[in-house]
Amino acid sequence: MNTSRLNRVIEGMKKHGLPCILVSDIESLYYLTGRWIQPGERMVALTVSQSGDVCLFANRLFSQRPEAGLPLVEYDDTEDCVAVLAKRLPEDLAVIGVDKCWPSHFLIRLMEARPGLRVKVGSAPVDEARMLKDAEEIAAMRESSRLNDKVLAALIETVREGDTEAGLGRRYVDIARSMGAAGYSFAPLICFGPHCAEPHHDSDETPLKKGDAVIFDVGLDLNKAMSDMTRTVFFGEPTDEMKKVYELVRRANLAGKAAVKPGAPLRDIDRAARSVIEEGGYGPFFTHRTGHNIGIGVHEPPDVSATSEAVARPGMIFSIEPGIYLPGKFGVRIEDLVVVTEEGCEVLNQLEIPAFA
Amino acid sequence: MNTSRLNRVIEGMKKHGLPCILVSDIESLYYLTGRWIQPGERMVALTVSQSGDVCLFANRLFSQRPEAGLPLVEYDDTEDCVAVLAKRLPEDLAVIGVDKCWPSHFLIRLMEARPGLRVKVGSAPVDEARMLKDAEEIAAMRESSRLNDKVLAALIETVREGDTEAGLGRRYVDIARSMGAAGYSFAPLICFGPHCAEPHHDSDETPLKKGDAVIFDVGLDLNKAMSDMTRTVFFGEPTDEMKKVYELVRRANLAGKAAVKPGAPLRDIDRAARSVIEEGGYGPFFTHRTGHNIGIGVHEPPDVSATSEAVARPGMIFSIEPGIYLPGKFGVRIEDLVVVTEEGCEVLNQLEIPAFA
Repeated sequence: MNTSRLNRVIEGMKKHGLPCILVSDIESLYYLTGRWIQPGERMVALTVSQSGDVCLFANRLFSQRPEAGLPLVEYDDTEDCVAVLAKRLPEDLAVIGVDKCWPSHFLIRLMEARPGLRVKVGSAPVDEARMLKDAEEIAAMRESSRLNDKVLAALIETVREGDTEAGLGRRYVDIARSMGAAGYSFAPLICFGPHCAEPHHDSDETPLKKGDAVIFDVGLDLNKAMSDMTRTVFFGEPTDEMKKVYELVRRANLAGKAAVKPGAPLRDIDRAARSVIEEGGYGPFFTHRTGHNIGIGVHEPPDVSATSEAVARPGMIFSIEPGIYLPGKFGVRIEDLVVVTEEGCEVLNQLEIPAFA
Repeated sequence: MNTSRLNRVIEGMKKHGLPCILVSDIESLYYLTGRWIQPGERMVALTVSQSGDVCLFANRLFSQRPEAGLPLVEYDDTEDCVAVLAKRLPEDLAVIGVDKCWPSHFLIRLMEARPGLRVKVGSAPVDEARMLKDAEEIAAMRESSRLNDKVLAALIETVREGDTEAGLGRRYVDIARSMGAAGYSFAPLICFGPHCAEPHHDSDETPLKKGDAVIFDVGLDLNKAMSDMTRTVFFGEPTDEMKKVYELVRRANLAGKAAVKPGAPLRDIDRAARSVIEEGGYGPFFTHRTGHNIGIGVHEPPDVSATSEAVARPGMIFSIEPGIYLPGKFGVRIEDLVVVTEEGCEVLNQLEIPAFA
């Protein structure tokens, strides 16, 4: 167990009035225990009480080792894992906060086994601890983004007419691995031409041709620190509209980063980026939030969006990724990760590539 | 919408007394709608009522197209998606069956928004429809396993001393892709030596050396039909114990397959395989279920296990994968996929490789 992280989680439980929480998210378990357990459909859960009692429940298949301060309850495939869990919860427990990701069938079975137990969403204490990265995490995130810069620069050097979206994605992963990454943080999202107008297009075997806009939205996993960056370039001569849209998005990205400082509401950061695009007349074509936090997980709360209630605090790491999407034509997105510092922010991505000559 | 599959799901809803279900599993959504939507942390849900009314709820980001018979309700990142959903459910709805995988925070928010609504686990109608593959699905699964046979045969040809577990895993994926697979169905699980004694070991950079047992547990995704096969070989001269354990597992695999016929309880199939290993004196070292169903998903219910209540029916496809794991020494697992036929079963994996000279 990482006791300093555990203590921050317990402080959060007190603040949120949760006597006990159940953590099942793979990344949150790793954050607290240093164990990376991928249980598939099986149940893995860590219970944490305000008094500091913790207990790990895991299928025997994953052969966990107990350690000082982390009791282990194992079950096997012949047992009802939720019954095993329900039996170990204190009899007088009135409220439990469950992981937002916990599959519903476990929750419904727990409610049936313990009808007097009130259930709440209980991820806030862990999410809020994970939100503020410590020096070690910031250093790891910096390394991950630096490597991502290098890998994308190397990939862009190789791009030729006829390359396909999915082919470039595979090449990104190969280069990332050859430079030391464990793998990608999310499947590379590489789009050509009109596909760039779909923010979540699945890369396919479409070949690159002259005149295409090209979006590279890529990230890698370096020691469980995730990176995430987007660059847009034009293959061949861009149209005047392409240049205009690119310039707006570039300015929106800069305005978003300029708005980052401790105490700034995340919605104001969204507004700063969005205003540039709205004033340029493309407001309706910026169809998503400006960014998301990131760390062990590629999408961590809170969002940088118009409805966010959160405020920037030193140690937060999030993306600034405005975009403009013109259906049937093309799209542009430019994304960097930033760390909130005491003074403002440090931008983790430094890759400068000319979008057009 | 695939109306014949939808009709089978509605029959199941009647059987299980569910007036309405909510489907959120990516694979189940694909099974019913033919749409592969990967929503990440966002909500995608399909509601199905016994009267045949369906409705797809999706974030606007995923740009779904409405179609005849599949109304679409879109929301965006500024809206509370669960409120949007709760408002569209019939006011007099008393019970809803929710997808077993639905993240708990959506469920808890739905229970808060609709306090009179009773929630149950509602995956059985879809799971039971998916469990019995139609001719088209069986043909696709046969192709996927045949390709998996070919890819593993090609991989084994290349194996040399000093190759690493993770390196062979990457090579498997490269070969699979070069032969037409979309990717893997699960990250290749390749283990050497004592790692073979951990049924869920994560492949690492351990190099292969003379005398190692080697487990290849690999599967690929061919047109959303998943394959899954395990072979164990010995690199160099096996010990007498290795030969004995291998022979027991091989016989357990054959006994499991021999027990497959329509009407056979899956627990009897587990027993048939397990008995061979128990009678050989290694019962405590066969630490997991004998198999699992498979299709669009690599692990589908029901299990082939000692506690399974299910019975083999024509169209089921599942694995037979007994193993023996000797901690600190080595392990052996042999796995094939079988389709239950009217007469018995068809074995989908035909790869024969000598485990030792």
